[in-house]
Amino acid sequence: MTSPMAMQAVENVMLNVINSDVKTLRDASHHILEAGGKRVRPRLLMAAYEALGGTDIEYAAPVAGAVELVHTASVVHDDINDHGVVRRGRPSVNAIWGRTFALLTGDFLFTKVYELMAPYKDLNIVLAEATVALVEGETLQASAVKEKNFTRQVYYEIIARKTAALFKAAGILGARLANAEEKVVEALGNFGFNVGLAFQIVDDVLDLTADSVQLGKTSGIDLAQGRGYAAAYATNGEANGGLAVAEAVEVEDDPMKTIKQKLLKGDAIAEAHLQAEQLVASAVAYLDVLPESEGKRQLIELANLVVNRDH
Amino acid sequence: MTSPMAMQAVENVMLNVINSDVKTLRDASHHILEAGGKRVRPRLLMAAYEALGGTDIEYAAPVAGAVELVHTASVVHDDINDHGVVRRGRPSVNAIWGRTFALLTGDFLFTKVYELMAPYKDLNIVLAEATVALVEGETLQASAVKEKNFTRQVYYEIIARKTAALFKAAGILGARLANAEEKVVEALGNFGFNVGLAFQIVDDVLDLTADSVQLGKTSGIDLAQGRGYAAAYATNGEANGGLAVAEAVEVEDDPMKTIKQKLLKGDAIAEAHLQAEQLVASAVAYLDVLPESEGKRQLIELANLVVNRDH
Repeated sequence: MTSPMAMQAVENVMLNVINSDVKTLRDASHHILEAGGKRVRPRLLMAAYEALGGTDIEYAAPVAGAVELVHTASVVHDDINDHGVVRRGRPSVNAIWGRTFALLTGDFLFTKVYELMAPYKDLNIVLAEATVALVEGETLQASAVKEKNFTRQVYYEIIARKTAALFKAAGILGARLANAEEKVVEALGNFGFNVGLAFQIVDDVLDLTADSVQLGKTSGIDLAQGRGYAAAYATNGEANGGLAVAEAVEVEDDPMKTIKQKLLKGDAIAEAHLQAEQLVASAVAYLDVLPESEGKRQLIELANLVVNRDH
Repeated sequence: MTSPMAMQAVENVMLNVINSDVKTLRDASHHILEAGGKRVRPRLLMAAYEALGGTDIEYAAPVAGAVELVHTASVVHDDINDHGVVRRGRPSVNAIWGRTFALLTGDFLFTKVYELMAPYKDLNIVLAEATVALVEGETLQASAVKEKNFTRQVYYEIIARKTAALFKAAGILGARLANAEEKVVEALGNFGFNVGLAFQIVDDVLDLTADSVQLGKTSGIDLAQGRGYAAAYATNGEANGGLAVAEAVEVEDDPMKTIKQKLLKGDAIAEAHLQAEQLVASAVAYLDVLPESEGKRQLIELANLVVNRDH
């Protein structure tokens, strides 16, 4: 995996930039950041950078930190909308500081992203567009829940934007920081995109099968809101999404019990896992443009870890 | 005032950039933007640009649009926290689309800011820092309400960050876009800062004295939450803020009646208006570095309009 020095540099950048003199913002930001998290996006960025010959960790770390702050900000806001009370094994910002301060903490983190990115000129647009996609994906998801329209196609569109776009940006940014040629930048973007899709599918499956302690966040929220891969997969690919609608309705009446049992019985979980594995295989194939190296090996390891995890 | 062509260019930039293919984000963003608003921040930026010899409206307009989007995003989030139901004479985003979509619309607008700013290299940090200050100011305000600590000093700190910092950024950005020398950039920043303070003081007074129809937003919310210039001024400058605490408590019990009557009887309103006028005079004095010109006249006119308005 990425060098511990690289990841420590990313942590330092993030912890430094959130040191506002406004106590609540400082405390809440430290709370969510110091809870850890998998740091998979900045790992991907730093691994891509190193795989392409980049050696200036101090130069790349602020961009990796910015990518993780986008994710962290979205998580803080997500917990407001979902009433999530546990996140990364700790009470959510929302649960401790309340909605108003959680909203402002998310805004603060979103804004700190651009303070970090300001020196990086042409890279700004990459992260800005990925962040727009993330917000659009979250919005599509909230709309799908409201309209009870959870087909596989809608699910794919949602996770492509809310998760895979930022993974793609991490790949592109790592490559661009290393001054890679355009063909390689594209390959790393495609690698990130496919890893991101796989990551979200596994996340949604874990949300169904793992408990809160293992996950470190309120389990079943995603399903309870009628979202999640398994719910979409339970349509067994029916284009009209008839079953998906039925699921969503049922979910609202009885969030966990019925659906969870139903999904765990069927082939949906296994099918989802298979798809995630296929996506990781596609992702790894994009790395064919790179010569063998320790860095390439790290990227492949990271991609495989995304599907082989229990939290 | 700024040329109609300049302000039309700013409108076009904003309306273009928010055209997401996600319907809710597009509709909600159009709803809040097309309601109008005073556009005082982009006006200040464009007037500063023109006053300093800038002529390329298409070059300056996206930055002015970005400044207005920061303000608009903060307004959308503010209405979530304050339960505001009227904004710019229309139902708030929150009132129409609900909290989840309002939160995401605010995030969307905050992010579009950086899509607009991406080409402007070194100017990015100016707006990023002003946006951080804005979020910090909102947080200080929410903390002051919670802790019932509304002294004049706290009030000043709040409005300096939540409002004046963005006005200052508008002045700086307008000047930097026109390639003004550092001394002039600073002067325009100070002009903006003082105009911003005056603007917020007048806003808070209007929140007390005008009704909702005139204001175009839910009147009395600011006061009901124990904030606002008048509440702080009712301490008559007492450093211990004893009276301010009493006010805040009372406000919670009976939001409008008692306090409004009390404040309108005393000298607080007149005193606040006097201070706003003094701030505008200070602001205008910073323009002494500029030779007389139509642009300078426009900046002075804009500063005076900030205090002489009824909504």
